[in-house]
Amino acid sequence: MTNPVAVIQSVRLDDEKDALILLDQTVLPNRKEYLELKELKDIWDAIYHLKVRGAPAIGIAAAYGVYLGTKQSVASTYEELLEDFKKAKEYLASSRPTAVNLFWALNRMEGRLHQEADKSVTEIKTALKEEAELIRAEDEKVCEAIGEYALSLLKPGMGLLTHCNAGTIATAKYGTALAPIYLGQVQGYDFTVFADETRPLLQGARLTAWELKEAGVDVTLICDNMASIVMKEGKVQAVLVGCDRVAANGDAANKIGTSGVAILAKHYNIPFYVCAPFSTVDLDCHTGADIHIELRPSEEITTKWYSESMAPEGVKTYNPAFDVTDHELITAIVTENGIAYPPFSDSLARLSKATKK
Amino acid sequence: MTNPVAVIQSVRLDDEKDALILLDQTVLPNRKEYLELKELKDIWDAIYHLKVRGAPAIGIAAAYGVYLGTKQSVASTYEELLEDFKKAKEYLASSRPTAVNLFWALNRMEGRLHQEADKSVTEIKTALKEEAELIRAEDEKVCEAIGEYALSLLKPGMGLLTHCNAGTIATAKYGTALAPIYLGQVQGYDFTVFADETRPLLQGARLTAWELKEAGVDVTLICDNMASIVMKEGKVQAVLVGCDRVAANGDAANKIGTSGVAILAKHYNIPFYVCAPFSTVDLDCHTGADIHIELRPSEEITTKWYSESMAPEGVKTYNPAFDVTDHELITAIVTENGIAYPPFSDSLARLSKATKK
Repeated sequence: MTNPVAVIQSVRLDDEKDALILLDQTVLPNRKEYLELKELKDIWDAIYHLKVRGAPAIGIAAAYGVYLGTKQSVASTYEELLEDFKKAKEYLASSRPTAVNLFWALNRMEGRLHQEADKSVTEIKTALKEEAELIRAEDEKVCEAIGEYALSLLKPGMGLLTHCNAGTIATAKYGTALAPIYLGQVQGYDFTVFADETRPLLQGARLTAWELKEAGVDVTLICDNMASIVMKEGKVQAVLVGCDRVAANGDAANKIGTSGVAILAKHYNIPFYVCAPFSTVDLDCHTGADIHIELRPSEEITTKWYSESMAPEGVKTYNPAFDVTDHELITAIVTENGIAYPPFSDSLARLSKATKK
Repeated sequence: MTNPVAVIQSVRLDDEKDALILLDQTVLPNRKEYLELKELKDIWDAIYHLKVRGAPAIGIAAAYGVYLGTKQSVASTYEELLEDFKKAKEYLASSRPTAVNLFWALNRMEGRLHQEADKSVTEIKTALKEEAELIRAEDEKVCEAIGEYALSLLKPGMGLLTHCNAGTIATAKYGTALAPIYLGQVQGYDFTVFADETRPLLQGARLTAWELKEAGVDVTLICDNMASIVMKEGKVQAVLVGCDRVAANGDAANKIGTSGVAILAKHYNIPFYVCAPFSTVDLDCHTGADIHIELRPSEEITTKWYSESMAPEGVKTYNPAFDVTDHELITAIVTENGIAYPPFSDSLARLSKATKK
């Protein structure tokens, strides 16, 4: 028996309207607005202004964007079409020059264009649409596989805790850490989820609490410093977090505060699961010590979101965007290739070979 | 050699002006405004609107308040003066009916009045002023003793971390957890202090960071979820926190998030010190399990301070005001009677007898 669950899809193509349909993440959680973007400059603007965020979602938006831009071309030859494609590609690439996934998606689209060089302009346009849809579908599949593996670690009725947003709105569908929650919801697992608000940028409050609530999941928002008491009170049986980068030894960099949650989980004997697509595993990075931590501006802590400053003028702050969770604190790393258990240097290497087969 | 340090005094009597001088804590950290309160209704209003906060500071303000109210009396006999005193006392008592220290201070003032029944009205008024000054001076002495004991546990140049506000502005002077920092500052200890912002009410950002910065202490504001990374990076050699209530076994209730900080400190092998006046030790309370945890409204997490809501409308929240730190996580409990080490059931009982001598 399965339950109907409304998992938000934050980025998709409307074929009839020739439009990219994008959930505007900048107005969450107060307004749920889908943008209908047809012009390249509007898609550029949406990426630039972070209306779409999350590496996979940005890549998908760019792929659809470059397809829509090329579709509008009046070129009649491959060469003319390639020129128009490249203009669209370069323009979109300038929207967020540090987003690796943006370039990856645009380059993959160009690769497909070259493959179809001997086809008609109409056929090439159709192939570009196919490739963009494939990028989206592959990401959905990765997330679904992570979700299924992670769900195998959980039991119905469990209390779960998550930090930041590793959810459906950052990916094609399902997300990573939230994927088992959505898949479990469909199967009637009735999870109780605690979402850390995740200071300073409040992704947990604005995004995770919002998307889980939209999907009908039983979600409770807490401040980051309340994770200890909910664990102590027996309300949490597993922690699920996403991940930005995993080192070869299993050390995992994720949103600031993740390492603290892992230490609490260990103290209270609660399993701590990192959910991540295998593309975030970097076997060339030996340990977490090799991962550079970005420091962000004071204003995010002192004034952002507030009606007036909440800290004395000119006070020093320390605002690292990420921290590294030591591999010894991690129960398992869940990827689309399978579940890695300690020692991670062995299990991650094994799962990596599984991919290359 | 000692350094001049400007430790804020948030509540004092201006004898010449017949006024209570009160730091308005509701406009911190953006404005440093001292109120000059002469009328009973203005003092009532200041307590009611939380312009003065912290149990000791409220008690001191009420003592000065009832003195100033009685001083204005035109009574010519003890009986008439007692009547006016009682009116003032009852009126002030109604300003914050849950503040235990408010009643304690007002009752102590009444006790003194009774003691002086055979004196002239002028002499009684002077005695009331003396008693109020004594209440203030005793609190200052308690804080100073806590500070000296705690300072004996610290070394110059240490990095310290504190949570919430257990500072000078909540007491007569020095505070509890911040007392060793001020005393160390005078002696050139050059501490580096990390202040957790302390969600949801941000006492760390608004009050602790402000008062330490005012006193010239090297303070850095962090979000609660950054405590783990600053400890991991070796920036913290001791944690100092205040306390609302200590059970006989050493379990300590304090601002939400304190227990999480204690778990992190244990993980990173950093000593965790609870600083509290012995009046907060409740030997009739066997363990932390007997301490009731107040739950507070959703709005503090979802909307308070913000220009617009940061969480989806109607989302569930869990907002406990305090948590209990297990005695096994506490290195020592520092009181004005001395330092209690584990096992706390023995050491606290011993220090308690020391008081009664």
